[in-house]
Amino acid sequence: NKPYQRPAADEPAWWFIVAGGEIILERGESLPPHGILNQIPMPDLSDYKVVYLGELRERNCYLILADYGDTQFAELGEFGNVREILLQGDEELFAVAARAKQFTEFLLTHRFCGRCGTRMQAVDWELAMHCHSCQHRCYPRISPCIIVAIRKGNQVLLARGKRHPEGLFSVLAGFVESGETLEQTLAREVMEEAGVEIKNIEYISSQSWPFPHSLMIGFIAEWEAGEIHLDPFELEEGDWFPIDALPRVPPQGTIAYKLIDSLKRKIEQETT
Amino acid sequence: NKPYQRPAADEPAWWFIVAGGEIILERGESLPPHGILNQIPMPDLSDYKVVYLGELRERNCYLILADYGDTQFAELGEFGNVREILLQGDEELFAVAARAKQFTEFLLTHRFCGRCGTRMQAVDWELAMHCHSCQHRCYPRISPCIIVAIRKGNQVLLARGKRHPEGLFSVLAGFVESGETLEQTLAREVMEEAGVEIKNIEYISSQSWPFPHSLMIGFIAEWEAGEIHLDPFELEEGDWFPIDALPRVPPQGTIAYKLIDSLKRKIEQETT
Ligand SMILES: NC(=O)c1ccc[n+]([C@@H]2O[C@H](COP(=O)([O-])OP(=O)(O)OC[C@H]3O[C@@H](n4cnc5c(N)ncnc54)[C@H](O)[C@@H]3O)[C@@H](O)[C@H]2O)c1
Ligand SMILES: NC(=O)c1ccc[n+]([C@@H]2O[C@H](COP(=O)([O-])OP(=O)(O)OC[C@H]3O[C@@H](n4cnc5c(N)ncnc54)[C@H](O)[C@@H]3O)[C@@H](O)[C@H]2O)c1
Repeated sequence: NKPYQRPAADEPAWWFIVAGGEIILERGESLPPHGILNQIPMPDLSDYKVVYLGELRERNCYLILADYGDTQFAELGEFGNVREILLQGDEELFAVAARAKQFTEFLLTHRFCGRCGTRMQAVDWELAMHCHSCQHRCYPRISPCIIVAIRKGNQVLLARGKRHPEGLFSVLAGFVESGETLEQTLAREVMEEAGVEIKNIEYISSQSWPFPHSLMIGFIAEWEAGEIHLDPFELEEGDWFPIDALPRVPPQGTIAYKLIDSLKRKIEQETT
Repeated sequence: NKPYQRPAADEPAWWFIVAGGEIILERGESLPPHGILNQIPMPDLSDYKVVYLGELRERNCYLILADYGDTQFAELGEFGNVREILLQGDEELFAVAARAKQFTEFLLTHRFCGRCGTRMQAVDWELAMHCHSCQHRCYPRISPCIIVAIRKGNQVLLARGKRHPEGLFSVLAGFVESGETLEQTLAREVMEEAGVEIKNIEYISSQSWPFPHSLMIGFIAEWEAGEIHLDPFELEEGDWFPIDALPRVPPQGTIAYKLIDSLKRKIEQETT
């Protein structure tokens, strides 16, 4: 499928519109507007860039690229939070919504060439922006992040970030830096944020985290050495918590939850 | 460490200069120029942005940001290939060289704001470029890629890409797309490139691949279903190869080699 293939006039498709990082959902429903173009209150699409997003429940999904502050789509529904879509557990919808959000971010932040300042053009056969002046080409940005649940005996290391509400604790996470392997990022982030060394890292799974474009790569690991020394710039409080007496942690649907759960099962298996 | 901390005048440091994707190495050596600034033939550094890169053999490393086509550094040595540094097996040097290469690419391709076209400014406390007109901020780009050695009995799936020399076969690889988990990328890439389905994926390790800014995330997996149908746009030829009768594969030091080797050991362990 070409990125800018246009919907057929009589195609019952899903329509994704992103603004301020949220997507339009039908009023009272947790789904984006769907249906045939001329049967829903849609502005004239010839004024908009339309991007093909993939399939959802066997129908095509299209992103309609609204500019910052565009109010033309207000009649279609109300803005809904992409994180909530995830927490509602609809993984298929979440994947398309995440893509819609990241493509919008990409297209709005690659209008000019970062190298020479010229206006960029969309490539027609792949989702990329190209500068015809200096030949610089950009693809949608994805920022890989590690996230890790660290175990010490029957305890897990949890901490509360500066921006997290009182009482909510999570596992450690951080962005991969240029030149690093994931293993190096894990060692560096855990040392920087908590002052400890880890061993026996084990990959569990990954999650797209479109805020604005992270890719969470999830591990569990074992404590190897060091007392906890929290980074005072990033973390408010943190400690080893017994796996059967956890504080409030991120909700089901997040990879943080999944990693804690996976440590828990591992510990339970060993002790029974 | 601040990104733009300047070297002390009497500091015996390592100097990294990148041009055309290669880095300057001392003539006849596989190491970048090192020593105290006024003892080596270095142009006046006050004309250049200098970026702190980390440590190598207990000395600080600095990137000197040369523009495209800058010839001021010719006397320092000769240009050497970063890929060759990797193949020489010096992992510590490779990590710094990879970072130097990616920071150079980042700084040269983020001079203008992609969102509004204004000139961007370097942030002083982290490696990022910031637009004071629209507040857009960019970090060095890292493009996550999956790479996977697929097993069917005692055979491994290898293919030759369009840009690979005659006779050189490798495992499948491809970029993560927006909204995908690594697991979804694996399924999509293997289906698109070879037409097969896989199961039992297992993470092995990762590698920074600064050409220009990939992060290779390496897996092994088992064939589940499907005959090989190669993507004619990306691949020239490909097949199942017996693990004890492989064609020429990528050299030691690449993650491709490591994945094939890891499948080989696994198969050998099972059969003895
Ligand atoms: N899905 C989950 O379960 C889950 C749980 C925890 C964290 N996360 C996500 O993980 C990411 C990292 O967590 P954190 O707490 O370290 O992040 P953060 O968002 O607090 O960022 C920390 C700092 O890193 C820098 N930064 C921002 N973007 C960057 C980039 N692309 N590359 C390099 N540096 C960058 C900035 O200085 C920022 O203040 C965030 O996106 C966060 O939302 C997801
Ligand atoms: N270290 C190793 O052992 C090893 C082995 C094989 C491949 N690789 C690397 O893996 C990467 C992927 O391999 P490939 O053969 O699919 O790549 P490729 O470089 O042939 O790219 C395939 C196509 O993907 C698109 N593309 C380029 N950059 C992109 C990005 N950032 N995001 C999305 N799409 C992009 C372009 O259309 C490009 O032609 C390359 O960087 C390659 O060098 C490394």
